[in-house]
Amino acid sequence: MATLITGIGELVTNDPTVGDGSPLGVLPGAAVVIDDARVIWIGPAGDAPAADDAVDLAGRTLVPGFVDPHNHLVFAGDRSAEFAARMSGEPYDGGGIAATVRATRAATDAELRAHVERRIAEARGQGTTTLEIKSGYGLSTDDEQRALRLLDGLTDERTFLGGHVVPPGADRDEYVRLVCGPMLDACAPHADWIDVFCEPASAHAFDGDESRAMLEAGARHGLGLRVHGNQLSTGPGVRLAVELDAASVDHCTHLEPADVDALAGGGTVATLLPGAEFSTRSPYPDARRLLDAGITVALATDCNPGTSFTSSMPFVIALAVREMGMTPAEALWAATEGGARSLRRDDVGRIAVGAAADLTVLDAPSYVHLAYRPGVPIARALDV
Amino acid sequence: MATLITGIGELVTNDPTVGDGSPLGVLPGAAVVIDDARVIWIGPAGDAPAADDAVDLAGRTLVPGFVDPHNHLVFAGDRSAEFAARMSGEPYDGGGIAATVRATRAATDAELRAHVERRIAEARGQGTTTLEIKSGYGLSTDDEQRALRLLDGLTDERTFLGGHVVPPGADRDEYVRLVCGPMLDACAPHADWIDVFCEPASAHAFDGDESRAMLEAGARHGLGLRVHGNQLSTGPGVRLAVELDAASVDHCTHLEPADVDALAGGGTVATLLPGAEFSTRSPYPDARRLLDAGITVALATDCNPGTSFTSSMPFVIALAVREMGMTPAEALWAATEGGARSLRRDDVGRIAVGAAADLTVLDAPSYVHLAYRPGVPIARALDV
Repeated sequence: MATLITGIGELVTNDPTVGDGSPLGVLPGAAVVIDDARVIWIGPAGDAPAADDAVDLAGRTLVPGFVDPHNHLVFAGDRSAEFAARMSGEPYDGGGIAATVRATRAATDAELRAHVERRIAEARGQGTTTLEIKSGYGLSTDDEQRALRLLDGLTDERTFLGGHVVPPGADRDEYVRLVCGPMLDACAPHADWIDVFCEPASAHAFDGDESRAMLEAGARHGLGLRVHGNQLSTGPGVRLAVELDAASVDHCTHLEPADVDALAGGGTVATLLPGAEFSTRSPYPDARRLLDAGITVALATDCNPGTSFTSSMPFVIALAVREMGMTPAEALWAATEGGARSLRRDDVGRIAVGAAADLTVLDAPSYVHLAYRPGVPIARALDV
Repeated sequence: MATLITGIGELVTNDPTVGDGSPLGVLPGAAVVIDDARVIWIGPAGDAPAADDAVDLAGRTLVPGFVDPHNHLVFAGDRSAEFAARMSGEPYDGGGIAATVRATRAATDAELRAHVERRIAEARGQGTTTLEIKSGYGLSTDDEQRALRLLDGLTDERTFLGGHVVPPGADRDEYVRLVCGPMLDACAPHADWIDVFCEPASAHAFDGDESRAMLEAGARHGLGLRVHGNQLSTGPGVRLAVELDAASVDHCTHLEPADVDALAGGGTVATLLPGAEFSTRSPYPDARRLLDAGITVALATDCNPGTSFTSSMPFVIALAVREMGMTPAEALWAATEGGARSLRRDDVGRIAVGAAADLTVLDAPSYVHLAYRPGVPIARALDV
């Protein structure tokens, strides 16, 4: 059943060949027709074909649904007390993850799945239509596999993150062998990606050699590669990601010139997660430096209970503009098309004929309001 | 008709004599009864009296409705293009206000009132139950009076801000005389407060002598005093406010030791507006310094189309914790009881028997989530 969307005050397509000729491809006075969850027509509102149903946006802005390519939504427990303590001056080194591992292991399948469903709905209510979701709070073969199985039908982007941290009390060499062997064997059939937390500065995360071993094992199982790299310090994460042709390296907060050169010469997207810097009072990554070097930048929430418990892509866009030197246009592109590239998808992150009908409405006359109205809930995914 | 509120996971009262003994007076396991828009009973849920109606919060947090004591909601027009330009590097000096003055003067009474009503509803949807609202985009006797008349019935806290900026083309001495004379005569009957933008660093705003003249004239007309002070530079605003016993001096971004001493020795609240620093990429005020000096701090959105187009008190709370050295508890207190003190009110900003039934629900197990979940719309005013 075809639905005609009219009354669009400003349409952001991310198609640079239409509209204002910018990367956002902004079209005024356009209408969109969707059918069977796909966009089937875009053009001047006066030329729109007949449809079975119609939605009038009354001058609101329509943008591609946000693509959030870095989320840790499979968890139980509350860490607000840890957050409050950190806001009184305690540093973050990844150690608090163990508390979430305990609570997650203790939760039933039904509880965990309900948590994930509620969090996906919360994100959708703020305009996010594609979410990558990681395991990583199980850290045993059974618990990691359970986290990924619970995601069946909830997202197309399931990431195995057995290599999140070494579980408390485990021998790290043995744990890396477990991740590369039996755990990966059990998890790979339920996953699309493998990710590792490559951070030599953390006693809990993994160094370059350990990260390489896990990523190469994942690739042998047919998984795409993602890396948590250079969050807390400079290190090997970014260059390893580019060398292995990972789809994305995430955080990129502490970069040396060689890291920027590697990203500029490779096919790996730099996914920035300023919510983590916000909630840990850390310095922000320098998006401007990456953009000026011609690197593809994506934005994500990093939604997790320890360091960034936000599901709001509009908040991340506002931070990117305030803190990372991005323009409102660059930030919106990074939150849509950038995220799609970080997931190596070309059917989302844009509004184009043939693409998914993942559409987000802004209660505002321009997409600029995403950064201009920080904290105000103006975005929601359109249910059609 | 009495309504019983049960299922409160955590109740923040702002009564330090109850609950955990902190300034927030946090009570677990409590119930609240309201009648005729007042709180009439607070106590253990098991002891709650019978009531005509009941609301079950299912474990959510209940806090006093946010008190937002600094807003510029009476305006028309859109300045998102100016915002986007500023995010490309242009500085702010208050000059853009003239664009809003033109659009506001051109709007009809019905249009302006509808804008204000929509903005109040937007704030209420994010948990704000008391808003001070200023004129200041009319800048002629008729237009300033109109702005205040339009607020009749919409808020109890109407502020005459003829002293916002010198209107384009006007002689500044003549304009100050107008504000102190005929404009004030026309506006005072429709206002509760007078405010001035005391900022010698801006060519558009007012110096200490001009500000004093307007404030003293307002006081002679029976208006309470408020001051925009020390936003863009150090200057006389804070000390003038304390000397004249203004209820509040707002911004307080650039303070000398003498300003802190004056605030510590006076009865004027320091109202901080970090949304303005967020949206102008300016350094934040140092709330910690003020709190450590024993000064009463309030938080407000400064919602206005030029420098801070947010209506979200939760966003302001998150910024206060991230950027101004406040704990989550201090920030919530400043956004409720602090705002009430900034308006010299004792019937709002707390949940106590006899106080207004202005209640805000958080979709979270603890008030800490206001800062822990930045950008996520977890707060809404309770409609009972």
